[in-house]
Amino acid sequence: MSKVVTFGEIMLRLAPEGYYRFVQADTYGATYGGGEANVSVSLANFGLDSKFVTKLPKHEIGQAGVNSLRKFGVDTSDIVRGGSRVGIYFLEKGASQRPSKVIYDRAGSSIAEAVKEDFDWDKIFEGADWFHFTGITPALGDNVAEICLEAVKKAKEKGITVSCDLNYRNKLWSKEKAGQVMGELCKYVDVCIANEEDAGDVFGIKAANTDVTSGQVNHEGYKDVAKQLADRFGFKKVAITLRTSISANDNKWAAMLYDGTDFYFSKNYLMHIVDRVGGGDSFGAGLIYSCLQNMEPQQIIEFAVAASCLKHSIEGDFNMVTVDEVSKLAGGDASGRVQR
Amino acid sequence: MSKVVTFGEIMLRLAPEGYYRFVQADTYGATYGGGEANVSVSLANFGLDSKFVTKLPKHEIGQAGVNSLRKFGVDTSDIVRGGSRVGIYFLEKGASQRPSKVIYDRAGSSIAEAVKEDFDWDKIFEGADWFHFTGITPALGDNVAEICLEAVKKAKEKGITVSCDLNYRNKLWSKEKAGQVMGELCKYVDVCIANEEDAGDVFGIKAANTDVTSGQVNHEGYKDVAKQLADRFGFKKVAITLRTSISANDNKWAAMLYDGTDFYFSKNYLMHIVDRVGGGDSFGAGLIYSCLQNMEPQQIIEFAVAASCLKHSIEGDFNMVTVDEVSKLAGGDASGRVQR
Amino acid sequence: MSKVVTFGEIMLRLAPEGYYRFVQADTYGATYGGGEANVSVSLANFGLDSKFVTKLPKHEIGQAGVNSLRKFGVDTSDIVRGGSRVGIYFLEKGASQRPSKVIYDRAGSSIAEAVKEDFDWDKIFEGADWFHFTGITPALGDNVAEICLEAVKKAKEKGITVSCDLNYRNKLWSKEKAGQVMGELCKYVDVCIANEEDAGDVFGIKAANTDVTSGQVNHEGYKDVAKQLADRFGFKKVAITLRTSISANDNKWAAMLYDGTDFYFSKNYLMHIVDRVGGGDSFGAGLIYSCLQNMEPQQIIEFAVAASCLKHSIEGDFNMVTVDEVSKLAGGDASGRVQR
Amino acid sequence: MSKVVTFGEIMLRLAPEGYYRFVQADTYGATYGGGEANVSVSLANFGLDSKFVTKLPKHEIGQAGVNSLRKFGVDTSDIVRGGSRVGIYFLEKGASQRPSKVIYDRAGSSIAEAVKEDFDWDKIFEGADWFHFTGITPALGDNVAEICLEAVKKAKEKGITVSCDLNYRNKLWSKEKAGQVMGELCKYVDVCIANEEDAGDVFGIKAANTDVTSGQVNHEGYKDVAKQLADRFGFKKVAITLRTSISANDNKWAAMLYDGTDFYFSKNYLMHIVDRVGGGDSFGAGLIYSCLQNMEPQQIIEFAVAASCLKHSIEGDFNMVTVDEVSKLAGGDASGRVQR
Amino acid sequence: MSKVVTFGEIMLRLAPEGYYRFVQADTYGATYGGGEANVSVSLANFGLDSKFVTKLPKHEIGQAGVNSLRKFGVDTSDIVRGGSRVGIYFLEKGASQRPSKVIYDRAGSSIAEAVKEDFDWDKIFEGADWFHFTGITPALGDNVAEICLEAVKKAKEKGITVSCDLNYRNKLWSKEKAGQVMGELCKYVDVCIANEEDAGDVFGIKAANTDVTSGQVNHEGYKDVAKQLADRFGFKKVAITLRTSISANDNKWAAMLYDGTDFYFSKNYLMHIVDRVGGGDSFGAGLIYSCLQNMEPQQIIEFAVAASCLKHSIEGDFNMVTVDEVSKLAGGDASGRVQR
Amino acid sequence: MSKVVTFGEIMLRLAPEGYYRFVQADTYGATYGGGEANVSVSLANFGLDSKFVTKLPKHEIGQAGVNSLRKFGVDTSDIVRGGSRVGIYFLEKGASQRPSKVIYDRAGSSIAEAVKEDFDWDKIFEGADWFHFTGITPALGDNVAEICLEAVKKAKEKGITVSCDLNYRNKLWSKEKAGQVMGELCKYVDVCIANEEDAGDVFGIKAANTDVTSGQVNHEGYKDVAKQLADRFGFKKVAITLRTSISANDNKWAAMLYDGTDFYFSKNYLMHIVDRVGGGDSFGAGLIYSCLQNMEPQQIIEFAVAASCLKHSIEGDFNMVTVDEVSKLAGGDASGRVQR
Repeated sequence: MSKVVTFGEIMLRLAPEGYYRFVQADTYGATYGGGEANVSVSLANFGLDSKFVTKLPKHEIGQAGVNSLRKFGVDTSDIVRGGSRVGIYFLEKGASQRPSKVIYDRAGSSIAEAVKEDFDWDKIFEGADWFHFTGITPALGDNVAEICLEAVKKAKEKGITVSCDLNYRNKLWSKEKAGQVMGELCKYVDVCIANEEDAGDVFGIKAANTDVTSGQVNHEGYKDVAKQLADRFGFKKVAITLRTSISANDNKWAAMLYDGTDFYFSKNYLMHIVDRVGGGDSFGAGLIYSCLQNMEPQQIIEFAVAASCLKHSIEGDFNMVTVDEVSKLAGGDASGRVQR
Repeated sequence: MSKVVTFGEIMLRLAPEGYYRFVQADTYGATYGGGEANVSVSLANFGLDSKFVTKLPKHEIGQAGVNSLRKFGVDTSDIVRGGSRVGIYFLEKGASQRPSKVIYDRAGSSIAEAVKEDFDWDKIFEGADWFHFTGITPALGDNVAEICLEAVKKAKEKGITVSCDLNYRNKLWSKEKAGQVMGELCKYVDVCIANEEDAGDVFGIKAANTDVTSGQVNHEGYKDVAKQLADRFGFKKVAITLRTSISANDNKWAAMLYDGTDFYFSKNYLMHIVDRVGGGDSFGAGLIYSCLQNMEPQQIIEFAVAASCLKHSIEGDFNMVTVDEVSKLAGGDASGRVQR
Repeated sequence: MSKVVTFGEIMLRLAPEGYYRFVQADTYGATYGGGEANVSVSLANFGLDSKFVTKLPKHEIGQAGVNSLRKFGVDTSDIVRGGSRVGIYFLEKGASQRPSKVIYDRAGSSIAEAVKEDFDWDKIFEGADWFHFTGITPALGDNVAEICLEAVKKAKEKGITVSCDLNYRNKLWSKEKAGQVMGELCKYVDVCIANEEDAGDVFGIKAANTDVTSGQVNHEGYKDVAKQLADRFGFKKVAITLRTSISANDNKWAAMLYDGTDFYFSKNYLMHIVDRVGGGDSFGAGLIYSCLQNMEPQQIIEFAVAASCLKHSIEGDFNMVTVDEVSKLAGGDASGRVQR
Repeated sequence: MSKVVTFGEIMLRLAPEGYYRFVQADTYGATYGGGEANVSVSLANFGLDSKFVTKLPKHEIGQAGVNSLRKFGVDTSDIVRGGSRVGIYFLEKGASQRPSKVIYDRAGSSIAEAVKEDFDWDKIFEGADWFHFTGITPALGDNVAEICLEAVKKAKEKGITVSCDLNYRNKLWSKEKAGQVMGELCKYVDVCIANEEDAGDVFGIKAANTDVTSGQVNHEGYKDVAKQLADRFGFKKVAITLRTSISANDNKWAAMLYDGTDFYFSKNYLMHIVDRVGGGDSFGAGLIYSCLQNMEPQQIIEFAVAASCLKHSIEGDFNMVTVDEVSKLAGGDASGRVQR
Repeated sequence: MSKVVTFGEIMLRLAPEGYYRFVQADTYGATYGGGEANVSVSLANFGLDSKFVTKLPKHEIGQAGVNSLRKFGVDTSDIVRGGSRVGIYFLEKGASQRPSKVIYDRAGSSIAEAVKEDFDWDKIFEGADWFHFTGITPALGDNVAEICLEAVKKAKEKGITVSCDLNYRNKLWSKEKAGQVMGELCKYVDVCIANEEDAGDVFGIKAANTDVTSGQVNHEGYKDVAKQLADRFGFKKVAITLRTSISANDNKWAAMLYDGTDFYFSKNYLMHIVDRVGGGDSFGAGLIYSCLQNMEPQQIIEFAVAASCLKHSIEGDFNMVTVDEVSKLAGGDASGRVQR
Repeated sequence: MSKVVTFGEIMLRLAPEGYYRFVQADTYGATYGGGEANVSVSLANFGLDSKFVTKLPKHEIGQAGVNSLRKFGVDTSDIVRGGSRVGIYFLEKGASQRPSKVIYDRAGSSIAEAVKEDFDWDKIFEGADWFHFTGITPALGDNVAEICLEAVKKAKEKGITVSCDLNYRNKLWSKEKAGQVMGELCKYVDVCIANEEDAGDVFGIKAANTDVTSGQVNHEGYKDVAKQLADRFGFKKVAITLRTSISANDNKWAAMLYDGTDFYFSKNYLMHIVDRVGGGDSFGAGLIYSCLQNMEPQQIIEFAVAASCLKHSIEGDFNMVTVDEVSKLAGGDASGRVQR
């Protein structure tokens, strides 16, 4: 059983029920999520040995974050306990022409204030095959970026495959800062994951002639982006997700994989969305799993897209699907017929 | 007022709220349902004198099953109380590419352990015009199949019309066993109801060139199936429902009626699904009602399909619609405009 | 900051959760709403000084109605307290082919039994720029119609712009009575708002060749209706909303503005509906706001339609959107992409 | 199996969840209840043939009222359908020093507007052994008082035992009016039920030296009240409930029975209250049941008090207890130990 | 109508439903509260002109805080909008021997980062009769303590009565720091409110021989504390609340008022607690109201204690009671009998 | 860190919300619990290395059972997956004089049908210090009793301390059968736990002169019972819990420990009950923990009783308390004062 380590922040997610707006809510659904934590849960659900590393306060709100991961079998034994708060994000689910809205309240979280001494990467990486992080983590602060750098260097040393989802967040840092920090980290990355806009935001690498709000996707442009990324950083694989937003309820979803030689485009799914948060993370998890299973490139991208397509039908950040369920969809049965 | 008797199992249905998966649920909606019970409630909602016969334990979980039927005016006076458990089914509602999932926990239920002596069909059938059962009931066990046989024979004796929905369930019995038992029971059946696959599963009678997952329906093939069924068992009427699954949220729904002479196809509805369970049962109820009202064949099939189309917009197994509502839709107003 | 006064009834709205039918409900969501109250809340959310005038009982159910308005900043200082009950309406949300259903229980409400002496329009209109009411209010009784007449006369005297949404309700009065009373009131109205059917129901002015259940909208016909309305009553502006009902879940939504010279048609939105109640009222609020901002006619109609398009994605009668949100949609971004 | 008929109003009860105040509620639990309906449900739960007679509108809110009774096996076949509204009462549950609060909104209900021709008492009373009503019903209006009078006369004629719970409601009528109307009706009553204050409010018959807010109950005083009542109207039995309110959560509960000869006092229970509404009605049902079972006087009063003691532990107006459960408590086991 | 201004923090309160522990919760009730905001809402519910001053972010979570106050009629026109976050507190309700638990997450809130320039006290105090704050507000930071000092000085200048609830929070500052800052502020205070421990924690003034966990209250000791406080700071009135904690569900509640001459002890209530948070604040509001109404000292303390006794029966921080309800309890009716 | 293994059944617990009766419920809270699983979770919450062993089906309802344990850190790696169903119990919470009610539906569960080959006790017991089971497990069937016997023998061999909670369930087996099977198993037990009635039910050993429904507890009698148990089976320790049921809401709770020499009685707590299920199990966990910490006998019994006292304030079967919380209560602070 392959072992994957991820590192990042897990936040308390507070979301009004159904389609209520923030100003209408007097209860919040309370779950946990975060880019790397979402990958860890998804991998645990696929049956891998999956460890998530972060720092969380000792109090019960921190404990509930740990529990949310343990529940699905994630190894939480290297989560450091301390610091003063759990990062929070408020999520209002959009509908039709009304977009979803996210309000972050994550400054001062335990992980954002963590120091290098908190983490012993030699111990953390024992027996690990793969290390994954996203661009959100180094954006939490210079201290965290340093921890990331130490982690990827250590992973490289140990021959652990490193993947990174660029995941640019403009509320956390500027494009310039992102480009500089991520540029350094990407030197140690083997597999790069990005959405339609990340490469442009972080590294100024853009797909020509594509307008993400127009519903048009430009295949040639994305090939070009992937090739530039691979050329600049020496990535062995680059995967780019391609979302077309028809409305807050309906999106198209596909992806492309570049393995340094060829380009592989997945099927394109029309999705009725239950919850789109974590869509990209579930793609990352699907990609890591299928790579670790040594699938063929076309299978890899189909598995990753099918996994994340299913995520969009599931409430919460975490992707609660099994390998069988993903394989069935990737294999072509998208009819949604009831299983008795 | 016509009087209809149905016989079968009513189960406790436990379903996570909304689109939550089983592993996310910490509350279950608790309702009751089952093939024949669903028909009985629907008929009571249409204003008929509707009786449901089964066996349920004496305890409160059994009582709640009785109450769920009484609430809608079903005559429960011939429900036998005893045995040890209520059958249960767990339902997870699918969305988009993720199919709904059903987990049965029905072994050992009171009705599955019932004996012939539990039921006095002479008394039960007093004043009855119609008797309905489905292929699920005899599948519960040889004892229950025997009770069914006794019931249909007695119904025949008394000149009561008998209808049967083939309703094949592969978790309950093999195709071979089903073919053998249902073949015997069908000798006493006047009106046969089936979905696209039942005739093939139970009797090996298949519509040529149709793939239920492809979204393609083959009219000629279904005509052939209906004719073969009628020819083999002497059914006076055969009705076949035609579902096309676009996604877990969107289905097309239509049906065909064969009256031994002609074939009548209904309108085809594109449905946004609220709850698809009980869809077929609501069709059966619509068919029984419209036959008892002596509607014309085209009206019969339009009424039955409209009734079950509306069912898909209603939570739970039971179809909560009035004759007026069905007639309005069958009559052509499918716009869903608000009624003030 | 412009100041707008509206006058009418605010009712307790009792609605089963989700898509449950009335006979399945054992809890009701309890919110408040009513044609003019909905306009007032929407205007307060747009940042205007917005006052709502009505009569409500002194008890807590009346108080909760006041609170529901204060919460969003509506000025409730001229709401008269007294009388015996709050009007109620029961709302069952439709889905797919099943229409929504409204049951009114509003007879005998405090406002329906109000007398002229209850309201001091000189005081109420202090500093006001605009007065709005709908055809529902005078339909509550001759006493209320008289109060309306007094209000519009006083508004006219003071140079306050008067708008009226015809809003015909056949459960409240006959077409004949409506035509007579509204005909008198419309003499004092500057801006007239109507849906596809109101002009015909109230004044017998119909758009030729249009069938509201067919999904077909006839542009020329509506031009003709608007022109006839303006000619008969001297309205400075006439706005007509154009709804096409595909199903209870999916509607198209657009509108037309006539400024006495030209006709301006808005974009046509395809909406997945969360809650369609208050759709017309949110259009009225959008229109009043954009007129008060002195927008150009095409901008006015786009703002009003975008505002009400967003309303359909929001639970409850009230439109909870900001000017920024409406402007963004009116400006062309209808993709519903998440905002982080 | 004895058959009992009751006649009165069933209202929609809207209550905020838990201990929320009206001004905090945005959902209401929606159940049904009313003095006589509560008795009917309780008797059906005891296994009697129990019929409830009223008038309810044809719409779904009326239908849901019918269903709420059918669910528990009450015979609703003589409920007249028509009129315009269902009476409503809003209930806010008190706690500690804060009392529960009831807001009635029942004017204009179908039963309050019913006419004599609506009810065919010969048909209604077929096979009946007992007729029960409360002082609330004639208080709904002179028309309803007349219907009551017709009913009790007819019952008398047919030798049906008549019971009446005085149940004085000062929001419905004055003490003078109540005394006059109830005085006439009581001539036909065999069994009179009252609480500590009813006899004083309706007939001016008071227990000396008792202050209901003080927690003191005066046994001798109640004996005197019962005797006066029996003497004045010729009641065969008079039962008086004795509630001591310690706080909104804690009450003491006992009762006294006078059979024309002797006085029987029940045990006195200290109750933690879940829901006190319907407490008196459940006492009435217990009394009717135990009388019909020909229990001894002491057993009668113990059964009635135990039944209503249990009611206080149950949500809603209806008493959901079996004869076994009541007998167990009446027999002395009040420990509340879990039953596995 | 008297006008009262309060100044402080309003936090988002997140509390698991019922008695669930934090680690069991997956929904949080989301309300708002804070020492001074609670006083403001209570005073608005008493019918006073009540203004709350704070700083809240511009986003929807901040807006919802404003709305929570407007809903009950609090004047929010001087709330400054800006800064980055709303303070949060997590509340787990205790039961029996298990205490309630509060986890604060308030660092970095908009008010905690506010500057003197944010508030224009001349404008804020226009027409004001009373200014109230608590010891929590200056504890938020030196900047906020300075703002408080400016406010009390300005109030003094304008002849506005100033009250202060000492409200010591050991998670916000040390006893030494509290003593120093509060000592300075108290020079401008007219009415001082404290619980059993505050005077000791902040100023080292202790009631001899009292152990708050023992259930014993020492009247003489509290007299001494009040006198020392008044003597040291020149308070015109000192009020001390006296809580005896029997269990998390049951507390005794009383208070003492010292007017510089005499000591007045209130009745002592035994309370079944629904929600104890805001108990002290509701006492403060009762005290301010009764002082402004010029009640007699004994009436003042009875009114304040009765108001806060009722608060313990109400969910949330805010006291939702009217003057009538408080007066009824203060007047002696503590039976909690239902009000129909 | 000590390691404790428990073995038994974990069931799906379905309970109506709040105090609703079964016949009123249309949602069930869905949690998991069972005698030994409850002990395992409690021990994990105390920070021990805690493993639970059982058999559960492969489907999602079985998986959710596993997840419910993992969430709190229980080691589930030796749970065998297979078989056909999860045992279920329905729980209706009692109030006041109305007792709680449990309906079991556990026949045919995976663990009840397990075979000896399913469990490899050598592997399971690796590194274990303590093994715990209850009398429920062998009662599931002769096959399970045999597995228990194998386990206790293996534990004995390995020098692992064995504890057993007698936990007699009369719905699972007769007293005779229980006595015989438990008599054999008890030979291998070191620490015996029982409630007031178990010793009598299983072994015919009774405390003289004690009536569990009377509220009287007889200290001398329990001493005698403990001594007889220890004498007959050679137990090193015997602990007996002493519950006095005042009502379904209020119980007294204490316990006694016999260490072969002396008798230690704990404090006696008066508890307001939130959820009494699992009370005994939480006592067992407290006892195991305090024994493993080598506490003194009086401390052991105080810790165990305080732990289980707190359990009664927590929803669900599992005891969610930390060592600190238990120690605080055991140390004497039972005031339930809020912790800020």
